[in-house]
Amino acid sequence: MSELTRELAEWSKKTTYESLPEEVREKIKYCMLDAAGVALAAVNGEVGQTFRSLLPEIGGPGPCTVLGSPECWNPLTAALVNGSLGHALDYDDTYQAVPVHTSGSLLAASLAVAERQKASGKELIRGMALGTEVAIRIGLALGRSHVDKGWHGTGTFNTFGGATAAGTLLNLSEKQMITCLGTAAVQATGLLRAAAGTMCKPLHAGKAAMNGILSGLLASKGHWTAPEGVLEMRNGFAALFSERPQMEEGLKGLGKDFYLLNTSFKISASCSQTQATIDGIHELKSKHGIDPESVEEIRLTVNPIAGTVAGIPEPKDGYQGKFSLAYCASLALYGYGHFPESFSDAMVNRPELQAACRKVKLNIVPGMGDVESGIEMRLKDGRKVSTYVPIAKGNPGNELSQEDLKGKFNRLVEPSFGQKSTQILLSTLLRCEDLEDSRKLGDLLRQASLKSAQTVCPSCAT
Amino acid sequence: MSELTRELAEWSKKTTYESLPEEVREKIKYCMLDAAGVALAAVNGEVGQTFRSLLPEIGGPGPCTVLGSPECWNPLTAALVNGSLGHALDYDDTYQAVPVHTSGSLLAASLAVAERQKASGKELIRGMALGTEVAIRIGLALGRSHVDKGWHGTGTFNTFGGATAAGTLLNLSEKQMITCLGTAAVQATGLLRAAAGTMCKPLHAGKAAMNGILSGLLASKGHWTAPEGVLEMRNGFAALFSERPQMEEGLKGLGKDFYLLNTSFKISASCSQTQATIDGIHELKSKHGIDPESVEEIRLTVNPIAGTVAGIPEPKDGYQGKFSLAYCASLALYGYGHFPESFSDAMVNRPELQAACRKVKLNIVPGMGDVESGIEMRLKDGRKVSTYVPIAKGNPGNELSQEDLKGKFNRLVEPSFGQKSTQILLSTLLRCEDLEDSRKLGDLLRQASLKSAQTVCPSCAT
Repeated sequence: MSELTRELAEWSKKTTYESLPEEVREKIKYCMLDAAGVALAAVNGEVGQTFRSLLPEIGGPGPCTVLGSPECWNPLTAALVNGSLGHALDYDDTYQAVPVHTSGSLLAASLAVAERQKASGKELIRGMALGTEVAIRIGLALGRSHVDKGWHGTGTFNTFGGATAAGTLLNLSEKQMITCLGTAAVQATGLLRAAAGTMCKPLHAGKAAMNGILSGLLASKGHWTAPEGVLEMRNGFAALFSERPQMEEGLKGLGKDFYLLNTSFKISASCSQTQATIDGIHELKSKHGIDPESVEEIRLTVNPIAGTVAGIPEPKDGYQGKFSLAYCASLALYGYGHFPESFSDAMVNRPELQAACRKVKLNIVPGMGDVESGIEMRLKDGRKVSTYVPIAKGNPGNELSQEDLKGKFNRLVEPSFGQKSTQILLSTLLRCEDLEDSRKLGDLLRQASLKSAQTVCPSCAT
Repeated sequence: MSELTRELAEWSKKTTYESLPEEVREKIKYCMLDAAGVALAAVNGEVGQTFRSLLPEIGGPGPCTVLGSPECWNPLTAALVNGSLGHALDYDDTYQAVPVHTSGSLLAASLAVAERQKASGKELIRGMALGTEVAIRIGLALGRSHVDKGWHGTGTFNTFGGATAAGTLLNLSEKQMITCLGTAAVQATGLLRAAAGTMCKPLHAGKAAMNGILSGLLASKGHWTAPEGVLEMRNGFAALFSERPQMEEGLKGLGKDFYLLNTSFKISASCSQTQATIDGIHELKSKHGIDPESVEEIRLTVNPIAGTVAGIPEPKDGYQGKFSLAYCASLALYGYGHFPESFSDAMVNRPELQAACRKVKLNIVPGMGDVESGIEMRLKDGRKVSTYVPIAKGNPGNELSQEDLKGKFNRLVEPSFGQKSTQILLSTLLRCEDLEDSRKLGDLLRQASLKSAQTVCPSCAT
């Protein structure tokens, strides 16, 4: 039996900022950039507004930034709200093989504890990098049956990631870190398929960050006790949350290989499972100059998870639209972008898009990948056109460039924060290692979020 | 497919205080009495001290009582701390057939929201009764495989119970209550066997209360969305958390029968699975006048769950002692009571008790019940004595009297709070329906807890 829990705790304890490979530090900064932009764009949406209206009841004062609030709050509050915002638009990054959306939840957990600790930017990067890697590795250890059964790695694995980030920034001992992971395990959950298309899906990311920090704080007190070896123990986390755990996968290359280097960034603000389809429809449209009205049927060949997670046939609101291959395909067919504002309730209910949704049929094929899609259009004149997208844009093998990611950030933040301030925030994020005190970054993010909170809600704008 | 979620929401919406049977109202008051006494006794233990030291970081101000704190806090904070205290001594009540410890978690959730709402004592009773019944019924619907696999109903089912109590007191509509239960489902978890003997076990009860209230507050905001029919839906809670759900069991006699009438109260401050064994050893000792030193071996015949949950052979600290049939048997053999102070670290490490632990052997027999035990002692002079306890004291069929329960409360509270104040608190709890404002009860509980916080920690006293 591998001792995954202890090995991860030991590794996180001994891995310094300096010992992280340069490419890991660089990637984590782009994860932070992407997560920050996406969370800022969500501030005025319904998830953000709901949490903001509840802050006095669910929060407490402290040193931490809560996006959209002028006051500062305690670490748990900040993690809950910011983590939920980070995943509210379903526009954040993904480690596809698990799958788990790490950065929204991990930035929330890491920044909150970094602000509490007045930690340097380097420590913030370290906390986020270790937390991300641990989340992914526990995902790999639990294996694909975890998500196939219906659990949501963004809730489950990120709780361990958040605990690792918090424990690292709190400078827990190795023994305390084992306690911290044990305490995380008894709180980690999330129901992927049930929650898809509802606000409970982003709640998973916020709760994971919050519970991770709670685990770190409890473990920092000498007397707190928790199961040891919780991941691999009999009746432990893996036994309960996976039908076929493969613990050794979590340890493969630990300290040498960083799985976080393979996370994917999204160019479209919808479910991961829709991205390849969107790429394919854009391709067919531009290649064949297709008029949307000329289309009789769109047949999408996708994997079974896409069918359940993104299978909503006729979405009724913007958030359901993100989990609808039919709607995402229809948007692409009509040449609209897949920006956050494309997933407003008003947009989803446009008659031409609702009509187009009804033309989309899903062909579910086991064994297809998460980021591939086959697209076939039958036109009213009898023609058939088709394409196959092996890797959606934004994934390893078809990466977004750093310029793409900066462009995404600017598009999300500039309209409310202004060009100059946005550039200062962007360069602060991408030079995060120069910060002596992470609260500087918190301040900038808070300012940006307050500007955003004063403008019109993107999902009400159309 | 039964519509358990909607039926429970509908039932809780339409069930008023007045429509609750008199015996239900009466039982719930004794549940409150028992839970309050046990939580107050835990205030100075390590769980209480850990949470208290973290209050500024995990809490926020509000109208709610947190046991052990002179200030008032918001509902989430109060639920987290009080719920954890309620289960910290593992001395709280249990619905054995599921099993789930309801009242510690449910009193925490119900009182916090009642204080927020300035609700009457009748409304508090109603919230706690409905929450308790829903927790138990969801437990029955998920079936025994839930706990057999390793989940902890005190974490999982109480989250739904807490959500029901909160939603009831917040006066949610039926639709909002369905959303509330959906939001609860994505947060509910708890690892029974992994956490047994650690502070994460009481944490489950606190998190369940806290998450239940968070679900209620989020659902009270019009825009919040959550999975509908979350219990029974495909890839919903039952499908994920049970191998053999039996949803119809959750609905049997709903509105007519109240399963909460069959919860058990503990006379010994240790795991439910140890209670029958303790009764049996007391019986043998008094019948045969056994000198502890004359015993060669104690053979206990118990069920498989007892073997894993209460199977710690040589406990090292007080909390492990509660989950050790060997230690509980040894305490009884030496004629000590099973009071909270019997589970101090010092007591557990007494040489004669440690030596006695090594004489205890477990005979695990599938099909034995949770509250029955066979006890056989082999004495050094060659004699064998044995007994069989079909139902441990405190369980249906062998109930504690109201006087027993008052006595337990007095023993737990009087030493710190004083006789007169304790009687006022007791009679306030047992005349709870007369309260116009539940904050009166909160005030009394806070005063009692502060007296307790000033005395010596029970688990350090010996």
